[in-house]
Amino acid sequence: MEIGFIGLGNMGRGMAANLVKAGHHVTVYNRTAAKAEALAQQGAIPAHTVADACRGQAVVTMLAGDEAVEEVTYGEHGILASLAAGATHVSSSTISVGLSKRLAAAHTSAGQHYVAAPVFGRPEAAAGAKLFVVAAGEPQTLDPLTPLFDTIGQRTFVVSEQPHTANLVKLSGNFLIASVIESLGEAIALVGKGGVDPLHYVDILTSTLFSAPAYQTYGGLIARKEFEPAGFAATLGLKDIKLALAAGDELRVPLPLGSLLRDRFLTLVANGHGDLDWSAIAALAGRDAGSGSDHSA
Amino acid sequence: MEIGFIGLGNMGRGMAANLVKAGHHVTVYNRTAAKAEALAQQGAIPAHTVADACRGQAVVTMLAGDEAVEEVTYGEHGILASLAAGATHVSSSTISVGLSKRLAAAHTSAGQHYVAAPVFGRPEAAAGAKLFVVAAGEPQTLDPLTPLFDTIGQRTFVVSEQPHTANLVKLSGNFLIASVIESLGEAIALVGKGGVDPLHYVDILTSTLFSAPAYQTYGGLIARKEFEPAGFAATLGLKDIKLALAAGDELRVPLPLGSLLRDRFLTLVANGHGDLDWSAIAALAGRDAGSGSDHSA
Amino acid sequence: MEIGFIGLGNMGRGMAANLVKAGHHVTVYNRTAAKAEALAQQGAIPAHTVADACRGQAVVTMLAGDEAVEEVTYGEHGILASLAAGATHVSSSTISVGLSKRLAAAHTSAGQHYVAAPVFGRPEAAAGAKLFVVAAGEPQTLDPLTPLFDTIGQRTFVVSEQPHTANLVKLSGNFLIASVIESLGEAIALVGKGGVDPLHYVDILTSTLFSAPAYQTYGGLIARKEFEPAGFAATLGLKDIKLALAAGDELRVPLPLGSLLRDRFLTLVANGHGDLDWSAIAALAGRDAGSGSDHSA
Amino acid sequence: MEIGFIGLGNMGRGMAANLVKAGHHVTVYNRTAAKAEALAQQGAIPAHTVADACRGQAVVTMLAGDEAVEEVTYGEHGILASLAAGATHVSSSTISVGLSKRLAAAHTSAGQHYVAAPVFGRPEAAAGAKLFVVAAGEPQTLDPLTPLFDTIGQRTFVVSEQPHTANLVKLSGNFLIASVIESLGEAIALVGKGGVDPLHYVDILTSTLFSAPAYQTYGGLIARKEFEPAGFAATLGLKDIKLALAAGDELRVPLPLGSLLRDRFLTLVANGHGDLDWSAIAALAGRDAGSGSDHSA
Repeated sequence: MEIGFIGLGNMGRGMAANLVKAGHHVTVYNRTAAKAEALAQQGAIPAHTVADACRGQAVVTMLAGDEAVEEVTYGEHGILASLAAGATHVSSSTISVGLSKRLAAAHTSAGQHYVAAPVFGRPEAAAGAKLFVVAAGEPQTLDPLTPLFDTIGQRTFVVSEQPHTANLVKLSGNFLIASVIESLGEAIALVGKGGVDPLHYVDILTSTLFSAPAYQTYGGLIARKEFEPAGFAATLGLKDIKLALAAGDELRVPLPLGSLLRDRFLTLVANGHGDLDWSAIAALAGRDAGSGSDHSA
Repeated sequence: MEIGFIGLGNMGRGMAANLVKAGHHVTVYNRTAAKAEALAQQGAIPAHTVADACRGQAVVTMLAGDEAVEEVTYGEHGILASLAAGATHVSSSTISVGLSKRLAAAHTSAGQHYVAAPVFGRPEAAAGAKLFVVAAGEPQTLDPLTPLFDTIGQRTFVVSEQPHTANLVKLSGNFLIASVIESLGEAIALVGKGGVDPLHYVDILTSTLFSAPAYQTYGGLIARKEFEPAGFAATLGLKDIKLALAAGDELRVPLPLGSLLRDRFLTLVANGHGDLDWSAIAALAGRDAGSGSDHSA
Repeated sequence: MEIGFIGLGNMGRGMAANLVKAGHHVTVYNRTAAKAEALAQQGAIPAHTVADACRGQAVVTMLAGDEAVEEVTYGEHGILASLAAGATHVSSSTISVGLSKRLAAAHTSAGQHYVAAPVFGRPEAAAGAKLFVVAAGEPQTLDPLTPLFDTIGQRTFVVSEQPHTANLVKLSGNFLIASVIESLGEAIALVGKGGVDPLHYVDILTSTLFSAPAYQTYGGLIARKEFEPAGFAATLGLKDIKLALAAGDELRVPLPLGSLLRDRFLTLVANGHGDLDWSAIAALAGRDAGSGSDHSA
Repeated sequence: MEIGFIGLGNMGRGMAANLVKAGHHVTVYNRTAAKAEALAQQGAIPAHTVADACRGQAVVTMLAGDEAVEEVTYGEHGILASLAAGATHVSSSTISVGLSKRLAAAHTSAGQHYVAAPVFGRPEAAAGAKLFVVAAGEPQTLDPLTPLFDTIGQRTFVVSEQPHTANLVKLSGNFLIASVIESLGEAIALVGKGGVDPLHYVDILTSTLFSAPAYQTYGGLIARKEFEPAGFAATLGLKDIKLALAAGDELRVPLPLGSLLRDRFLTLVANGHGDLDWSAIAALAGRDAGSGSDHSA
């Protein structure tokens, strides 16, 4: 397929590279041009403007958040103005449910298509084509995109015909991971102060009822207090929890655990630790227990 | 080995049966004698008093909580008064950290041994010898018990030499499971009101980042609102969360998520639903979102 | 003074009437013109457009929230476009800290002045000139407005020279009142289920340590479950708590009690009770305790 | 009247002195005898044993908590064993609802009477006879005690005929005060970081909607971060909130704000600040906001 790819950060870089490797003609755009040049070495066509990345059947956006997606979509030479009628904007960024709805309406008005296809996985999974793709949109729009999704991920889940439902699933998924982090933080503060070795404890958990990747990944980081470098920064965690709460606001769904998480992330950021991995909120339970912590007191 | 087994409820029954099957001489006691008779058919020796169950090298207690364990341990004809010097009380019940400490001290004073060996797993796992045993105690006391643990469980973890640390791990484990339930309840309330099918949602979660037994078991129950019959009743969930908070009190470890869980269980029980499965707390998020619920409004 | 007054709702009506009564030349504007006509009977000059209300030395806005204030301020014939250089926009609405900052910057750019002067008090206090005015802005702008503030309120407090700090104080004040409501709701649920008469209880409280208006007003409403008609609707309570949390977000101040309040208001609104008085969140504690409640189950 | 008085701490000392001054024959007992000697100078009769303080028509206990009250009541030479038939135990300590019920039952069994009469007020109020007495018990038992209550307090409220309801009101009152402290802590953290002077802020609050003693007393302490010396220590605050939650447990009333307060007090105590005034929990909001604090980081 002939496609564009906008956003070559930690995640987008790997996704775009895999699309190139699979034989697609991929025109890549990044605000900082150097990153596009690097991909050009692997066979991608570097674009100098957003519009240049919109010449194919689809353009994928993989950006930091609402603001960045709005910037490349709206405006005189944005995606809306540049994409051909009948072509599709594939939004893979973690954005708000509200923006996803607005994008769907705007592209429909412009005679274009829109699908949301956020992904689960950290940068290593993006590089290794091991992402999980959570897609939503009209079947006739989604079906032709199957080869793209199969290239970047290990499996694709179609949520519904409403694009924004995929964003909702993505945000709720991050909420669930943050909940795992908080619960591990409290549990480890408790057993640790009670004389149990945290690493041994995490080993017991992940060998029994909690043999899921989320517990394995974060349990280790928390037990070792290994919050740098950030795989996913606390500031981004705060952003996502706020988006989940905003979705709850709009749908009128109170999320008390979500509120607790928001306060934890805000505490971390307020104390100057927004650049640590988001699992650092787990250290706050230890701080409150007086157990001391290098990073969050 | 020659052992006693006290407490033949949903869990104890399966554990005792497996010990018999493995060739141990097991004397079984239960307050309601009929349950002991049933096991006698399988080769156990029914005891008419607690003291009768204390004639061997070890006696296992698997009871509902602190009160029941105190009742069989203390008193004129209790375990303390009946167990031979050098024999061991293996406490597998989910009890408080405080009681576990008192039991350790009392048995030591009486020239007996004490280990804590609570288990993870639901009644099916007890029947199938698939429990996880979390043991703690002095090595010379624990070592000879290895065959017993290997008989009732699929794997044994030794936490430390302090028996009460095993109880702490067990309580923290139940706290973690309850945290999974609460987080799934909120997430399902959110995506459900947003138009995503709950069962499909749980399938996505458990196929990706949350492929752990806890998410599989409880995700399904919550998505189907299948809270009866209870595998583990809400009243017991409340009891265990209160024990975790009490441990936090004693160790001075605030557990804000634990506090939220306590309030959820208390709400369920206050509204007459204490006999539902403890996963029914998940329905409270939906109730607060106005989504309606048969069980908890 | 020659002034304009925009927004003749429950609060604005009384404030404008008092300004007229005190001898000021008051041009009044309301989206629904009928309300302006009613005030004309008392001596006010009805305006047909926002611009008509901007001919004097100052224009006061007393509207429902950010959106309404933005609507009359910006736009081709809004306050910014209509107010004379050197004249002042007095913003008395309960708006966000963020909007207050933007308004200050916009008016300064336009060569105009801006002060924030939100008020504490319910409609009866507005009618009786018993409001408390919480003002902030540059002294040379505020000083000439003293007679206006003295006319509508019983006392004026100047917070600082930064207008938005008055909005922050107003929002935090509403947060404090909502906290009183929640705490009374929980306390009354507790003592009520324990056999104490709620009205007698509130009488004890307000005769001793809690002899403040907030406890007297809301204690009575809660004890009598008298949530209709609303003096201040739950939807507005939700709006204000969200603004307080947004201010906390921007300033990086976690507000856990604020988060609890947000969830309470959201629950009320999600269950179709947004039109009740905001004190109805107090009934949720009783609902969770299984005490039954007509309004919020 | 001929009465005994047990417990001469900060509160009891002033209460007993006022009873002596009013002409009653007061036999005083304190575990540390020196305090009784001091009161003897003012006309009290020092007792050397609990039993000696139980020879009159009534004995008042004003002790630190459940344990202390149980110690003087039960046991071979305790109040139960020493008080005459028909005489009354007046329990003024802040104790659990559960203990108050047990005391009522025990005294009834012994042919004695029991009333609960906890008080509101700090040591200065006890010395100045300005306490508020919250009493509960059977009318025929309470009536003759009226002169005592009138002597120690400025006003007496009778809650109901069930003694424990007075304890419930007392505990809920302390919960309400702690709620005021928490809400002020969050509000001051918010406005303070936003550029408002905390003392000026408290002045505005207490001049308007919050003109109650609780806001005046604690607002000042919090704004000035004046947490030493403690008028009422954080450890006692923790004790009382836990008793309120325990009452909620027994009555099945979830108290989410109570849970938040418990975690705050526990955090303070865990970090070695249990001897500060209980208003120091207010500084935790500032700590979480990164505002720095000498006492609680």
